[in-house]
Amino acid sequence: MTLDHTVVSGREQAVTDEVLASFDATPDPRLRAVLQSLVRHLHAFAREVRLSEREWQRAIEFLTRAGHITDERRQEFILLSDVLGLSMLTVAINEPAEPGATESTVFGPFFVDDAPEVPLGGDIARGASGAPCYVSGQVRSVTGTPIAGARIEVWEADEDGFYDVQYPDGRSAGRGWLRSDANGEYRFRSVLPAPYPIPHDGPVGDLLLATNRSPMRPAHLHFMVTAPGFRTLITHIFLSGDPYLATDAVFGVKEDLLVNAVHHDDGPAPDGTHPRGGWHSITFDLVLAAGDDDL
Amino acid sequence: MTLDHTVVSGREQAVTDEVLASFDATPDPRLRAVLQSLVRHLHAFAREVRLSEREWQRAIEFLTRAGHITDERRQEFILLSDVLGLSMLTVAINEPAEPGATESTVFGPFFVDDAPEVPLGGDIARGASGAPCYVSGQVRSVTGTPIAGARIEVWEADEDGFYDVQYPDGRSAGRGWLRSDANGEYRFRSVLPAPYPIPHDGPVGDLLLATNRSPMRPAHLHFMVTAPGFRTLITHIFLSGDPYLATDAVFGVKEDLLVNAVHHDDGPAPDGTHPRGGWHSITFDLVLAAGDDDL
Repeated sequence: MTLDHTVVSGREQAVTDEVLASFDATPDPRLRAVLQSLVRHLHAFAREVRLSEREWQRAIEFLTRAGHITDERRQEFILLSDVLGLSMLTVAINEPAEPGATESTVFGPFFVDDAPEVPLGGDIARGASGAPCYVSGQVRSVTGTPIAGARIEVWEADEDGFYDVQYPDGRSAGRGWLRSDANGEYRFRSVLPAPYPIPHDGPVGDLLLATNRSPMRPAHLHFMVTAPGFRTLITHIFLSGDPYLATDAVFGVKEDLLVNAVHHDDGPAPDGTHPRGGWHSITFDLVLAAGDDDL
Repeated sequence: MTLDHTVVSGREQAVTDEVLASFDATPDPRLRAVLQSLVRHLHAFAREVRLSEREWQRAIEFLTRAGHITDERRQEFILLSDVLGLSMLTVAINEPAEPGATESTVFGPFFVDDAPEVPLGGDIARGASGAPCYVSGQVRSVTGTPIAGARIEVWEADEDGFYDVQYPDGRSAGRGWLRSDANGEYRFRSVLPAPYPIPHDGPVGDLLLATNRSPMRPAHLHFMVTAPGFRTLITHIFLSGDPYLATDAVFGVKEDLLVNAVHHDDGPAPDGTHPRGGWHSITFDLVLAAGDDDL
């Protein structure tokens, strides 16, 4: 009673062919190419696993839950892209072809586009809890030219592993932006980053649980650096020795992005204060690739 | 200044390999296989089109909009699956391997699981506008055995092309369920189906617009038929001669699902009434494949 295999796969191919043809009249050739490639690969996936109707339903339910938990402060679709490695693959595909530029990593779901400006040397922690950490470095081109006036956005979780937007009280902390000085140099006060789990009370968390994957990310601090004539750099710095470097839930770690946080027991911090328990310092140069920006 | 191609693709492959390995400890082998296949094909798509970061952002925004427009009465993710042909491909993959069974088509986004029961021969239009249409047939197995007591769910749009759930007034109309009689026979009153556009005021509509695709579906009436020991049948009947049969936005048309709606100028309708303007009749047998149900 089984249909001939050729007949079965012929029917499936006919569906794929019909869908591909439906995009033939797309005016924008790039959009046409992207959608036709998406259809080919999505259909190849469904055919390879012999997707059941129940599994299709569960996928619809998963996406629906992801959509409903997403709001201005929570972005489950970015998390999903992150844990499936699509975010990091997109970074790899778009890595600037300029040796010497600082490497990129995932954007993540916690950027806020109206963070406050802080003065050079100022405090981006702005009340976020954690050990004082002073970060400095130089923004320059791959040929070594300092880049003055680069806009440097910084954001990070507090010592409890939460970004400000994860608190229900509407606080703004652990984020800000500043500009590099005439010599391309920058410096700010922050708090020492801490490892944390990505939000795992939604469908992406259920996925990690069902697959025995850890939601933990190693401690890091986010940068986004923009300057005219240069490609936008989206990256993190990670702390050497962090126990989660090899198992980052979003695959974001690159060796070139590891930094040492040096602990200073005493002496004045760069801003002249004497924090109880000492303070940390990190130096990290931000080397931008020349080019246009597609962001 | 361009990195060697081998280095570039090596980096991309390293991301994919790391993500695949992260699912190795998934306890359920089926879930592991599905997710690893999804990752392979999703990554192959991104690499093939050289997905830009801006395009990745637009994809995130698209899914977010789809999630936010989805509620109990609107299911944008099913629409998305439908217009990408994934729904119809899933139907093809799961088509029962029994020659002679009625063919399946897409489920669509408009089923409601608490539609009212109507008596055999009763009215499922329940106030939906349109020309009276009397539908009847027999539920049977592929060997010709009548199936008594099969549960037949029916739903359809009104003559303006809207399902009840698309109206903001909370009405219930154009849907209901009934059971086949001792001889497997069924009959109900409905309205003649009309062609209609799928909801196109959301991201899926924008996608159709950007790709010069029509949102129209040919006129149809939905069936879902369940009976113990048989596979659930999810299908439509389409009207022969409909102008949209070749360009169904969701690729759902199959030749075996075309029916003739016969117009009767006068004489009593099957329920003894004399509708002004006459009435239509459709006969369609529902032949179920034996088997378990994965729904």
